Amino acid sequence: MFESAELGHKIGKTVWKKELPALREALLDAQLDLLQSRRFPVVILIAGVDCAGKGETVNILNEWMDPRHIETHALRVLTDEEEERPPMWRYWRALPPRGKIGIFIGTWYSGPLLENVYGRSKNAELDQQLERIARFERMLCDEGALVLKFWLHLSRDEQKKRLKSLEKDPRTRWRVTDTDWQHYKLYHAFRKVSERMLRATSSPEAPWIIVEGTDPRYRYLTIGKALLGALRQRLDAPETAPPREPFPPATTAIDGLRILQTLDLSRRLKKADYADELERYQGKLNLLSRHPGFRKRSVVVVFEGNDAAGKGGSIRRITQALDARQYRVVPVAAPTDEERAQPYLWRFWRTIPRKGRFAIFDRSWYGRVLVERVEGFCDHGDWMRAYGEINDFEEQMVRNDTVVVKFWLSISKEEQLRRFNDREKIGFKRFKITDEDWRNRDRWDDYELAVCDMIDRTSTEIAPWTLVPANDKNFARIKVLKTLCERIEEALGE
Amino acid sequence: MFESAELGHKIGKTVWKKELPALREALLDAQLDLLQSRRFPVVILIAGVDCAGKGETVNILNEWMDPRHIETHALRVLTDEEEERPPMWRYWRALPPRGKIGIFIGTWYSGPLLENVYGRSKNAELDQQLERIARFERMLCDEGALVLKFWLHLSRDEQKKRLKSLEKDPRTRWRVTDTDWQHYKLYHAFRKVSERMLRATSSPEAPWIIVEGTDPRYRYLTIGKALLGALRQRLDAPETAPPREPFPPATTAIDGLRILQTLDLSRRLKKADYADELERYQGKLNLLSRHPGFRKRSVVVVFEGNDAAGKGGSIRRITQALDARQYRVVPVAAPTDEERAQPYLWRFWRTIPRKGRFAIFDRSWYGRVLVERVEGFCDHGDWMRAYGEINDFEEQMVRNDTVVVKFWLSISKEEQLRRFNDREKIGFKRFKITDEDWRNRDRWDDYELAVCDMIDRTSTEIAPWTLVPANDKNFARIKVLKTLCERIEEALGE
Repeated sequence: MFESAELGHKIGKTVWKKELPALREALLDAQLDLLQSRRFPVVILIAGVDCAGKGETVNILNEWMDPRHIETHALRVLTDEEEERPPMWRYWRALPPRGKIGIFIGTWYSGPLLENVYGRSKNAELDQQLERIARFERMLCDEGALVLKFWLHLSRDEQKKRLKSLEKDPRTRWRVTDTDWQHYKLYHAFRKVSERMLRATSSPEAPWIIVEGTDPRYRYLTIGKALLGALRQRLDAPETAPPREPFPPATTAIDGLRILQTLDLSRRLKKADYADELERYQGKLNLLSRHPGFRKRSVVVVFEGNDAAGKGGSIRRITQALDARQYRVVPVAAPTDEERAQPYLWRFWRTIPRKGRFAIFDRSWYGRVLVERVEGFCDHGDWMRAYGEINDFEEQMVRNDTVVVKFWLSISKEEQLRRFNDREKIGFKRFKITDEDWRNRDRWDDYELAVCDMIDRTSTEIAPWTLVPANDKNFARIKVLKTLCERIEEALGE
Repeated sequence: MFESAELGHKIGKTVWKKELPALREALLDAQLDLLQSRRFPVVILIAGVDCAGKGETVNILNEWMDPRHIETHALRVLTDEEEERPPMWRYWRALPPRGKIGIFIGTWYSGPLLENVYGRSKNAELDQQLERIARFERMLCDEGALVLKFWLHLSRDEQKKRLKSLEKDPRTRWRVTDTDWQHYKLYHAFRKVSERMLRATSSPEAPWIIVEGTDPRYRYLTIGKALLGALRQRLDAPETAPPREPFPPATTAIDGLRILQTLDLSRRLKKADYADELERYQGKLNLLSRHPGFRKRSVVVVFEGNDAAGKGGSIRRITQALDARQYRVVPVAAPTDEERAQPYLWRFWRTIPRKGRFAIFDRSWYGRVLVERVEGFCDHGDWMRAYGEINDFEEQMVRNDTVVVKFWLSISKEEQLRRFNDREKIGFKRFKITDEDWRNRDRWDDYELAVCDMIDRTSTEIAPWTLVPANDKNFARIKVLKTLCERIEEALGE
């Protein structure tokens, strides 16, 4: 795989001088088109062998283009805010918005590579990590990002030469550390693992571009031209909206039975029992939130449900049991313009709680496969792939010791009508009912279908959906509290 | 000052039961009006004596109102990302946007109070810290925030009683720590310093409200009513724009001499000298950026100047000398909607660099006293107070070991015309010239006046302006590089 990157590629001074001015101007021009059109973000990864010129390459790109619209991220040691979140959090928060270029040096590949070379991870684990990376990059591309991955290669001899020459020069001696020599000794191990890595993560939408790092002029021109080509190709393509597919046919089972219909909405809880149970489970939840083991965990609670199903009331029964310093309720409304310039899940990544905290979502990332699907706010392809992306997102939280609890609050169409009418009558509840609610109601069946699909595709072992019959508010609230307690207890091994 | 908070205030159960429902409903109602109108943010501080019920109060407020639109911040130990920024950074990033409520427990008062009680700061230092806090709060209010500061008080006997009773109950025993008893022993010292603190920071726009903490019902009702009153007063006031004052009279000296006119714009640098000097100062800057002492410092460079004065070119001469992993260039354009929902300086606080980094601003927080002033985008009062707020902002950076370097690049009106015409002729530079540039040019004199005022009011000893004659680009670029090097050298004690 690295053979053509050990041929000793070189670019003479004459060619360099001849090609450089036009390349720089064209790159600057493309960057400007990108900035003005804001059509997509550009994510550039610079990875490769130590001393192959990664830093210099990043500097050259910043020099050739307008550094005001490039952000370079050299993410090394984790900050403690990063340490408490899933590993990819640091990269999500550094993603460039549409129109901008983000250069990453020290990428999401570094960790898995080093772990494997140093024997801290088995190959099976590495493959798993690489598969997750591949999914992440596919998501970036699907969301419109242009992803360019450069791997700077050096042969073993060339690496040694480079280290020696850096050491000889007093101005660069500081750059060579013991780690560098140690890595040099592990050259073959690095090479082997890198090959596996590159193979596993070269995809049609985000292929690796392997560049021989020996000759700087060759390296810079190759990378510059690849970048220019990719930019121009995307910028010059006509901006056609992908074909809007018709509302997809129902995926319901042939006998017409849907999971929501199996819910017994008539379940009730007597007032007296409610008071007892409320005290019991709120007390339990409070104790769990102060459990010593909880300091190393966090909880994400998702509330989805029919309009007027009582999400707000259920949330308040949870927060009443907690210390306000420990939770955050996130109402999900229209995205801000900063959020709109990023991949769909970005705005949810920003809200991931630290250890020892609760984040409670009043509506959530499931909006894409519910309202956005039904109302046609996004394409068929977008919401179809969202199921997988959401599962990946939740899996990352769970691996980071977050308990993910998801509730669908279900009421009948008749009960909803009753509540809508009530709300319109009671002054201080009037704000809770809008024209949109009435419009959604007209599409009851479409929503029900979308909900059933959502449950089928995203109720996973690690983050299952709990369907809550909510015609009776008391029953629903206790069901929510009880489930939440059970899930946390289970996670704490209580 | 605490006398009326030691009277043993109490609210009976009957009054409580009678008043509570209406209060809660009215609070919820006010919160909703706030959310829908998005007129202002609400900042609530809950401070006071240990065990006076701060946590419970925060919980009650979250229970009474809609927790989806409240964010509670209990900021204790600094994260390492916070540690590298000025102390107020953590509070800036936690400020609620318009329409929302932010509750702070563990506030910007905690640090100064504790330091003084434990004898780690002298009274003069405390007063200085309090003065800074007062200025910060005034800024919040001027920017439209409703700031409510509650101080929960307990007499010494009451505090002891509370500690004992918490210790006796196995369910609350964990809440009493050694520190609590230590603070109890220091009660008188705490009281003295608190008094000083409350006196110094009670202002007409953000007065302290002292509340006896002994009886929970009294405490909750008092705070709830104060909050409701303040909310209603602001919400019910007609939304009148403050009177637009006419463009203010010139503040130029009576002899008509302005500082910009004293600049010798004819200064030039020969091409050969330029090449030498460029190499020299870029080399120097590079060495400085890798100086061991630099790891504990950071640099903020501000570029302002006439349109077409060459800001971009100067910035690139700096970035060329640096490692791209170490700097970020921040182009200042229109604020995003998240930024618009915050105080003016919020969007600049978010960009404050970590230690060992450069942040280079292409235009900056001075926009308020330049374009916003001249074009009437903000009120007279807004830009007048901005001078002081900006000085405070820069002072905080400097105290945090940031080197703040500010350049005004000055060209003559004739030179600008020449450059505008050039830009319109050269294809790939055409984007650099817009109708707005031509319009700004028509207001040359107004801008010049604003610039002179800005320099007069914000060129401080710790963050001076450097005026750069920029008719000759070479001269300007070297002047910028040289000044930057000198300022960093000085800071490093080289």
